[in-house]
Amino acid sequence: MVGLGLIGGSVARALAARGWTVTGSDADAATVRRARELDIIAGEDLAATTSFVVVATPAGAVDDVVRGVLGRLEDPDLLVTDVAGVKSSVVAGLTDPRFIGGHPMAGSEQRGLLASRADLFQGCTWVLTPTALTEPAHYSRLHGILRDLGATVVAISAEDHDRLVALASHVPHLLAGALMNEAAVAAQEDAVLLQLAAGGFRDMTRIAAGDPAIWPDVLFENREAVTESLLSLEARLATLRHALSDGHRDVIAANLHTAALARRQLPGRALSADRLAYLRVGVTDRPGVLAAVTMAASDLAINIFDIEIAHGIEGAGGTLLLAVDSEHASRFLETLVSMGFSVTLER
Amino acid sequence: MVGLGLIGGSVARALAARGWTVTGSDADAATVRRARELDIIAGEDLAATTSFVVVATPAGAVDDVVRGVLGRLEDPDLLVTDVAGVKSSVVAGLTDPRFIGGHPMAGSEQRGLLASRADLFQGCTWVLTPTALTEPAHYSRLHGILRDLGATVVAISAEDHDRLVALASHVPHLLAGALMNEAAVAAQEDAVLLQLAAGGFRDMTRIAAGDPAIWPDVLFENREAVTESLLSLEARLATLRHALSDGHRDVIAANLHTAALARRQLPGRALSADRLAYLRVGVTDRPGVLAAVTMAASDLAINIFDIEIAHGIEGAGGTLLLAVDSEHASRFLETLVSMGFSVTLER
Repeated sequence: MVGLGLIGGSVARALAARGWTVTGSDADAATVRRARELDIIAGEDLAATTSFVVVATPAGAVDDVVRGVLGRLEDPDLLVTDVAGVKSSVVAGLTDPRFIGGHPMAGSEQRGLLASRADLFQGCTWVLTPTALTEPAHYSRLHGILRDLGATVVAISAEDHDRLVALASHVPHLLAGALMNEAAVAAQEDAVLLQLAAGGFRDMTRIAAGDPAIWPDVLFENREAVTESLLSLEARLATLRHALSDGHRDVIAANLHTAALARRQLPGRALSADRLAYLRVGVTDRPGVLAAVTMAASDLAINIFDIEIAHGIEGAGGTLLLAVDSEHASRFLETLVSMGFSVTLER
Repeated sequence: MVGLGLIGGSVARALAARGWTVTGSDADAATVRRARELDIIAGEDLAATTSFVVVATPAGAVDDVVRGVLGRLEDPDLLVTDVAGVKSSVVAGLTDPRFIGGHPMAGSEQRGLLASRADLFQGCTWVLTPTALTEPAHYSRLHGILRDLGATVVAISAEDHDRLVALASHVPHLLAGALMNEAAVAAQEDAVLLQLAAGGFRDMTRIAAGDPAIWPDVLFENREAVTESLLSLEARLATLRHALSDGHRDVIAANLHTAALARRQLPGRALSADRLAYLRVGVTDRPGVLAAVTMAASDLAINIFDIEIAHGIEGAGGTLLLAVDSEHASRFLETLVSMGFSVTLER
C-alpha cells in the first residue's frame, strides 16, 4: 500500500483479513506509526517479493509513485493499480502493462486511516480501466482480488469513466456551488431569501458545503469532460428558458415528466428502484419521534434504505420520507398509523 | 375557506380550534362531505356575516375566485387573502383594498384534506404581499390571525416574493430536472453511469422525482423571474467553464470556497446554523442501527435537526450525517463511540 488514508487503510485491512502480508507507506510518518500499532501493516518496505501494489495517494502524486514502483520492481507478474478519481490523465501516461487504473466508488464521507475498515468495499462499485495493453491474466487476477474484497468490478475505458463521473459527480458539485453563490449574492440584498429556501434548495446545495480544498485538483484533472458536460447542461437550461419565454408549455412539461420518470428509476443500492416504496410520515421536531419510527422498523425487521426529513422552514413540524422494501411497506404503514402517525404511501 | 386541500384544510382546522366558525367549499364534492364529517367545517355557504375569506384553490383559479368573493360580499371590513405560490400576477389584477396576497411556506410534501392538521403553520414563514392600497388596519388584523396560527409573518412585495422563490424554489426544480435528463440521455449509451451516481447526484436530482403536473403552472406564472434567474445561473456556469478552460484555478477555488461558507451558514430551522454541529457516524445497512443511534439521542434528550444517509453505491455500509445542537454534540459523540460506532465531529 502506498498511501494509508481511508481507501489505502481499508484495502490494507481487507487484504490482511484475507491472509495477505501487507506492507505500507504514507507521506505522513504518524499515520505509518499508527498503522503499525494497529497491525494494519506488517512493515513499511516495498519488498522484492511484493506481488501487488495499490497506489492510494492523492491524485496528483499517482503518476510519479506508480512510475517509481514499476521502475524499482522488475517482476513481470507484478500488479499495480491506483484509486484516483480521474483516470485518463493517469492511464494515458502509463504504458507498462503491469499497471491497470482503478477507482473504487466508496466512502468519501469520512477521511483518514482511523475511518478505514476492512468491509468498506462490500458491495461497492470498483471501476477498472483496462487498455489495449492490458494482459488478460493480469486483469483477471486484479478482478479476482477486488471481487474477494466484496466489490462489484466494472470495466470501462478511462475516457468513459471521466466523462461519466464528470456528469455524475463533478458537474453536480459545480452546480451546487453556483446555485448557492447565486442565492448568497441575492441574499445580500434580500436576507429574507434564506427564510424562503426550503428542502429542495437545501438538497441541491448540500454538497457545496463539503471541503472545497480537494475539488480544484479533481476538476482540473478532468477539465475536458467537465467543460463539455457543463456546456451541454447550459444548452439544456437555455432551451428551458426559451420554452418559458416563448410559451412552449409542452416542452417544459415533457422535460419535467421525463426527469421525474428517470429519477424514480434511479437504482437504489442493494434493492432495485422498483422494489422501493416511500412512506411519508408527518412528524414533529421533538426528541424521540425519529427513534419511535425507526425502532418500529427494527421491531418489524424492516430495513430503512433511505431516510430524509422534509421540514417546514423553521417549523416545528415536518415530514419523514422513508424508503423501504415495498414488500414490507403496508405492514410498516399500518404499524405507524396504529402509533398515531399520519402516513402516506408511494410506490 | 375556498379550497379544502392540505393548506385550506389546515387553516380551517387551526381557525376552528381557536373558536372561529368556519364554512368552506371545494371543487370536489367528496372533499366537502369529508370535511363536514370530520367537523373541519361547520357549513358550506359564504354567509353575509363572513368576515375573513382564505382562497386556497389551485393558483390558476385564485383571481376569479377572489373577484367573486369580493363582488358578493360588500362589507368594507371583509378580509380576503390567498395562498398561491406566485404572487405578482394575482396581486396586480386585484386592486380591492380588502384583498392582501399571501403564501404560507409550509407542507408541500403531503397533499389533500386528509393530510391537513391544525398545527401545520406553527413556526412556518407566511409571506404577505401588501401594496400601496393596503390599509394598515386590515394588514394588522390579518397579521394577527396568522401569528395566532403560529406563523412568522414576513411582508415583502409581490415582485420580490416571485424573484426570490424563483431562485429558492423554481429554478432549483428546473435545474434538478435538467441534470437528471442530462444523465438519463448519457445513461442510454452508458448504462453504467447510474452505477456511478453517488449521494451528491441523488441529492441534487431528488426534487425532480416530484409530481411534475403542478410545475408548468407555477413556472409560467412566474416566467419573468424564472427566466431572469436562469440566465444569471447560466452566466455563472459559463464563467466556471471558462475558468476551467483557461486554467484559472483561483476562480474555481474562490467559487467553491464562498459556496461552502454560504451553505454552511444557511440557517437551520429552530436553531441558527452556527449552533449546529454535524456528527458523521459509520453505519451498516442492517435493521436496527438507525434506531440504536436515534434512540441514544432520545435517551440523552438530544434533538436531531437533520439526518441523512450517505451511502456507498449498492454498498452495505454508509455514513449517517446527524445535525444536532453543538452544545450537546460531544456528549452524543461519546455515547455513540461507547456504543462501538466510528464517529467524527464537524462544527
